[in-house]
Amino acid sequence: MGTPITFVFDFISPFAYLAWKQAPALAKRRRLELHPVLFAGMLNHFGHLGPAEIPPKRIYIFKQCIRLAASAGVPLEPPPAHPFNPLTALRIIAALDDDYDTQLAATNALFDTTWAGGAGIATDEDVVRALQQRGLNGENLVERSREPQNKERLKRLTAQAIERGAFGVPSFIVDGELFWGHDSMEHIDAYLRGEDPVQAADLKRWRDLPAAAHRR
Amino acid sequence: MGTPITFVFDFISPFAYLAWKQAPALAKRRRLELHPVLFAGMLNHFGHLGPAEIPPKRIYIFKQCIRLAASAGVPLEPPPAHPFNPLTALRIIAALDDDYDTQLAATNALFDTTWAGGAGIATDEDVVRALQQRGLNGENLVERSREPQNKERLKRLTAQAIERGAFGVPSFIVDGELFWGHDSMEHIDAYLRGEDPVQAADLKRWRDLPAAAHRR
Repeated sequence: MGTPITFVFDFISPFAYLAWKQAPALAKRRRLELHPVLFAGMLNHFGHLGPAEIPPKRIYIFKQCIRLAASAGVPLEPPPAHPFNPLTALRIIAALDDDYDTQLAATNALFDTTWAGGAGIATDEDVVRALQQRGLNGENLVERSREPQNKERLKRLTAQAIERGAFGVPSFIVDGELFWGHDSMEHIDAYLRGEDPVQAADLKRWRDLPAAAHRR
Repeated sequence: MGTPITFVFDFISPFAYLAWKQAPALAKRRRLELHPVLFAGMLNHFGHLGPAEIPPKRIYIFKQCIRLAASAGVPLEPPPAHPFNPLTALRIIAALDDDYDTQLAATNALFDTTWAGGAGIATDEDVVRALQQRGLNGENLVERSREPQNKERLKRLTAQAIERGAFGVPSFIVDGELFWGHDSMEHIDAYLRGEDPVQAADLKRWRDLPAAAHRR
């Protein structure tokens, strides 16, 4: 099946949720490797603003997600609050890197509880309940999220994603090639079919473009 | 034909170029109103970084444009330099708001000279040549771009776009509804067919979402 496709995500992102709901098609081609990151940490690294931090963009992004969800037939409901603190949820997925089946089940539970009409995952109690509803040991997993090595693991995963070229979520890394955004999934399909129009020679011209002006 | 569709753009943006090359399909449904803005002015307004200002995003965006151009069958070549100063070009389009045919022809000339293998529009001499190659009076139009009222006109257009909800380019405004990005064009199609899944009642729930956390 080739090398895995790395799925870089944060539960905070509705685009990551939409990508996750459409990822099974990709998972038929390659194993999906789960790579949770703290999106806020990425933004801090680049000194960038997230979409929810620019007021007109915030509401626009929600509209765009409603449209994308409708066209993909994916259920989408507003969580009880947004933004929220996704750290416990992300640390659990990071901690589960030695148990793929539970990692997948927990990711499903946490995404759905956030974006598919659930009670959200803003508090540790919410996270416990979200996991228990899917038959997972929520108490134990939330315990594990508090262990220093699992906090460190999420930090390391966030730094590693940035090292591998990611600057946002969702991202997919395929054979070292980064694809950013829910809308890149059709480009990944083309890439996997050997039909990516990006060629190394052309790309060099774009990469080497000199700047003739900079913003003040 | 209903109210016009306002096309908010800056020549600096390859996504705006791609949207422009695919805009004729929209122009069959509604008159396209040209609304040039200084994208850098928008970024300054929101304290935001442009895609070219985050190094891994800069090269990714170019790859994404190569893929989108290939899939749409639109020619795309790197300009001689990027970013460049688009002020003269934008002021010309702003100045031409009383002469739609020339405005369209100049927009075509300036977009193509930037993104379809031309010599770029980074200097006033480049702009003159780009316009003359399409039979337009380049000298005269560059003269007009230097008139204080045309500099003001571009500033006003940029501020007006922000007032109308725009935070990036390209944007389209249809009946007061903002659509952002090249990838929103399919959503505009659905809107024009009366099939926009965004409903006012649902939207209120998204708009009123409380924040449970803020980034430090």
